[in-house]
Amino acid sequence: MAVKNAYNIAVVGATGAVGTKILETLEKTEFPVNELKVLASKRSAGKTVQFANNDYVIEEATPESFSGVDIALFSAGGSVSKALAHEAVQRGAVVVDNTSAFRMAENVPLVVPEVNEQDIESHQGIIANPNCSTIQMVAALKPIKDAFGLSRIIVSTYQAVSGAGDQAIAELEEQTAQHLNGDAMEANILPVKSEAKHYPIAFNALPQIDVFSEGGYTLEEWKMINESKKILHDEDLSVAATCVRLPVFTSHAESVYIEIDKDNVRVEDFWKVLETAPGVILEDRPAEQVYPTPLSSADKDEVFVGRVRRDPDKSNGFHLWIVSDNLVKGAALNTVQIAHSLVKNNWL
Amino acid sequence: MAVKNAYNIAVVGATGAVGTKILETLEKTEFPVNELKVLASKRSAGKTVQFANNDYVIEEATPESFSGVDIALFSAGGSVSKALAHEAVQRGAVVVDNTSAFRMAENVPLVVPEVNEQDIESHQGIIANPNCSTIQMVAALKPIKDAFGLSRIIVSTYQAVSGAGDQAIAELEEQTAQHLNGDAMEANILPVKSEAKHYPIAFNALPQIDVFSEGGYTLEEWKMINESKKILHDEDLSVAATCVRLPVFTSHAESVYIEIDKDNVRVEDFWKVLETAPGVILEDRPAEQVYPTPLSSADKDEVFVGRVRRDPDKSNGFHLWIVSDNLVKGAALNTVQIAHSLVKNNWL
Repeated sequence: MAVKNAYNIAVVGATGAVGTKILETLEKTEFPVNELKVLASKRSAGKTVQFANNDYVIEEATPESFSGVDIALFSAGGSVSKALAHEAVQRGAVVVDNTSAFRMAENVPLVVPEVNEQDIESHQGIIANPNCSTIQMVAALKPIKDAFGLSRIIVSTYQAVSGAGDQAIAELEEQTAQHLNGDAMEANILPVKSEAKHYPIAFNALPQIDVFSEGGYTLEEWKMINESKKILHDEDLSVAATCVRLPVFTSHAESVYIEIDKDNVRVEDFWKVLETAPGVILEDRPAEQVYPTPLSSADKDEVFVGRVRRDPDKSNGFHLWIVSDNLVKGAALNTVQIAHSLVKNNWL
Repeated sequence: MAVKNAYNIAVVGATGAVGTKILETLEKTEFPVNELKVLASKRSAGKTVQFANNDYVIEEATPESFSGVDIALFSAGGSVSKALAHEAVQRGAVVVDNTSAFRMAENVPLVVPEVNEQDIESHQGIIANPNCSTIQMVAALKPIKDAFGLSRIIVSTYQAVSGAGDQAIAELEEQTAQHLNGDAMEANILPVKSEAKHYPIAFNALPQIDVFSEGGYTLEEWKMINESKKILHDEDLSVAATCVRLPVFTSHAESVYIEIDKDNVRVEDFWKVLETAPGVILEDRPAEQVYPTPLSSADKDEVFVGRVRRDPDKSNGFHLWIVSDNLVKGAALNTVQIAHSLVKNNWL
């Protein structure tokens, strides 16, 4: 394909928590947009969204929507991606998919540009955006792997409700108000909307994100395990995850234990690597109480790392605290970065 | 000392979050109380508290307060314990101290009755109640250690604000209301009242509990590390901790990774051990979305365990989710259990 100056873009799921951020990010990063199509379910058709100070009317996403589209950014749930991504590719679009539908498919690159941008080149029409909790972890660990080697990851997450969409955000607001008013909390959405049981998230912590699967792990946990290996190109990497939803609106935090290959590495060596890592900001000055938190990281582009410590017993074991906005780097920004890479490298 | 039918009890810090629960627990567990003294700082003197349907007037805690007291339950902060515990012992009382003042002292037993009740016998006047986050973890891990051996613990905590006292509870309430009203959140207490910087806890997660110490670890983290080894009588046990405060009022949760000594142990074997463990309730049926949460565990006596999984890569590695009310088993109940043990075993 010849290099163009601007591209026809479709955003699928344009009214959702991530879709809204994708539109903001296309504008903020000055993506060269020629025509913009904002697509969603039939239910949202006719609504308007804003982009670059213009109103755009939402159209229902159908196979025909993708005619003439160069890049389609999907963020409307796995079933929509499964139904329409291949239709978009058949019509000449390159799809950047923000759902889990194709992430582990062999012919689909799974990309965090700071980590494995080159993987985009071999795409066959679909590029997958990793799970939010995976993106921030591998973005912080890739420079560490390059510097010191990496053999093992054990992660416990502290995840925001916005990862479960707008209804989960509303549910946290409502339950919080119910509690402050002395009313019983009503739970209808979290931990997983489609599941039989729902539990309050306000003033609570739910050790279930997505449905349960093999070995007692949830799908969210398997995503972190399998996606990390794929993105880091290391099937032998040991990864275990415990994923927990918190009463936090935005930004996921992660308590991460790693084992590295190199001996005699000090915390200061980690700092040096993280200080110059792309897309990473080191916030680690315990004496001044400097460490990242979900609130301090919200609405920011970078992955923040603090609390770097050597394990008390294992000399090549280290603990880190990794925080990033799950809607920004964890979703919209990473998706748009992949789109930028496609056009910048002429990989469409 | 001759066996008595009832004992003179002093509760120091009787107006605080834990002190209030201690009074409730003495009553609920039918502790044989003869005379009750409710002590606190000068500021609280003259207030009244309830016990067994009677009002008791708070007196200022002074060395003389302990004359005639058989058992003094301290829960008014480390500085009060340091100032008054030895005074109480000199006057013939046995002290059960709920602060960190004496926990690691060689002559002071550090006790979770389900784990190491026998250690109480050798006390020299002071018995220490462990840190809340330590108690629930060792209560769940002791039966596992007995059955399968235990060589390593890596824990990430999800801790409630009530562990930081009444002011922290009030701060979470206030910040939550501020947020819902669209006002800026004011932070004056958490993460640590005496520290220079304070951060909002509402809709946030703070990776600092207590002040920072050696190696970039906080004191709370060192407490979990050192206290676990002491209670489990195993200086060679590897323990690492990351302690995080959440916008949760009551009950701490813990994501715990352990390595056991025995081979070929299955999740079902863990279930069998935990089902009959004293003070522990197994809540682990992923197919039915059954697992403990802070809200479901609040106001209960037991330590709840769920999400037991084998590590995907390490056959003797397992992950667990351990939840308990930090004011009940994590503080008041454990303290009162020690007092019961003292009188039941004639160890005063």
